[in-house]
Amino acid sequence: MTDGRTECAFEFDTDTRVEAVGDHVYTATVADRWQAVGGTANGGYLLGIALRAACLASPMPDPLAVSAFFLRAGVPGPARIDTEPVRSGRRLATVQANLSQGAKEVLRVVATFTDLDKARGRTLVRNEMPALPPPETCVDPVAAAGLPAGSAAERVEYRLPAVGGWWCGKPTGLPLAEFWMRFRDGRDADLLGLAMLVDAAAPAVMELGVAGSLTAELTVHLRARPAPGWLACRVETRHVVEGFHEEDFEIWDSEGNLVAQARQLALLAE
Amino acid sequence: MTDGRTECAFEFDTDTRVEAVGDHVYTATVADRWQAVGGTANGGYLLGIALRAACLASPMPDPLAVSAFFLRAGVPGPARIDTEPVRSGRRLATVQANLSQGAKEVLRVVATFTDLDKARGRTLVRNEMPALPPPETCVDPVAAAGLPAGSAAERVEYRLPAVGGWWCGKPTGLPLAEFWMRFRDGRDADLLGLAMLVDAAAPAVMELGVAGSLTAELTVHLRARPAPGWLACRVETRHVVEGFHEEDFEIWDSEGNLVAQARQLALLAE
Repeated sequence: MTDGRTECAFEFDTDTRVEAVGDHVYTATVADRWQAVGGTANGGYLLGIALRAACLASPMPDPLAVSAFFLRAGVPGPARIDTEPVRSGRRLATVQANLSQGAKEVLRVVATFTDLDKARGRTLVRNEMPALPPPETCVDPVAAAGLPAGSAAERVEYRLPAVGGWWCGKPTGLPLAEFWMRFRDGRDADLLGLAMLVDAAAPAVMELGVAGSLTAELTVHLRARPAPGWLACRVETRHVVEGFHEEDFEIWDSEGNLVAQARQLALLAE
Repeated sequence: MTDGRTECAFEFDTDTRVEAVGDHVYTATVADRWQAVGGTANGGYLLGIALRAACLASPMPDPLAVSAFFLRAGVPGPARIDTEPVRSGRRLATVQANLSQGAKEVLRVVATFTDLDKARGRTLVRNEMPALPPPETCVDPVAAAGLPAGSAAERVEYRLPAVGGWWCGKPTGLPLAEFWMRFRDGRDADLLGLAMLVDAAAPAVMELGVAGSLTAELTVHLRARPAPGWLACRVETRHVVEGFHEEDFEIWDSEGNLVAQARQLALLAE
């Protein structure tokens, strides 16, 4: 994971590379091509870096429940990730990863890992994946609306059934969206990619006509390894109270399986 | 908070007392009257202890987003809570609290605090509190069904519109429930109490006929200070995949406000 010289390295893998420099300590470089509107690093991208270091420190391969506290804005440049193996059990292992820049901690992540290949138990899903037309017949909202988007939005592709609402300057008042998403350079999502992608789309509250949303905390549950291809996404906010709001995010893979479920607590930027 | 000699101390306050014994270090005693079925300490109760220490270490009063990783079973007896003030900003402050017993860490909590009195912003709720008959006309399921419940269930009161399903040995197959809840000794819930109560009811997956559910990670968002009185609760599991499942928990206060929203990742015990 510290070798970016392979021939067809994808952007996300190149830009989340971490290098071991000491006992449980890693360094990384926050790239400038994953920025949110405003020039700070996209939160999901920072989580990708921290979680990659946590993966290296984990005795089990698959991140399962990941909680991220966003403490400060991340910026392009060097970063350090201090990891701590917290507990290793028979079915689960927990690791903490603190990402800092300079002397300032930017992001604190605690993640529980498992080995999904060994998961045994029943399956019951009381939910449906978003009913979307095929991506080929959908619209690229970034291209269609020409909104100023951070560079992170150029690393990811979106497809909507139709472009309307806040994309066209007419917020619907309904903070809910369903759409397709994938990495633009053809990288198929894996669990690490999913942890980034749950924070890679426009906040649902944009439909309330706000300027944006600042994430305080994000928890993502990675439920299955995704099949290759487009990912069907559902994002929704149901409770805005005095500016604080949750955002729920589901990602379903091309075989119709729920693969990631995230919730964040965020503050309206008005 | 370290003085339990007040005349009408409630059980939850007495049993989550923490005492400062060093720089950011607290001790507590895990009481034996908050046990789950099986004799281990209820997870929400342990979270109450850790979060009380985190509150003391926080420069802001109100826990807002709390993430808890359950590492080992907690047992009655002494506990130590190591806290770390992580970051203090203008609107949010983050604290970590690790609860251990002996040399073993039992629970790791990261919590972001705010001052809810200073919250300003819009409010929009796209959800309804559970439509329940008044608690007075509902049934106490523990008394009615006579199931073996841990001692924690004796500290909390539940009221259901009717007692059926797994309570009567006939699981419905539908992991969903709506009910009233409160502390049995008359203590009104506050934010700390809510953080305990989101883990104080029977898991929704009991309706699948399983033996129980083991929590790996629980995140609770505390959205408003609750009004006194009964709390209306909704618990639901929508995705069980290979035994792993989320559980979503909402608590609404007697004035109809959403006051807590929790999600946990757990494993079926079969």
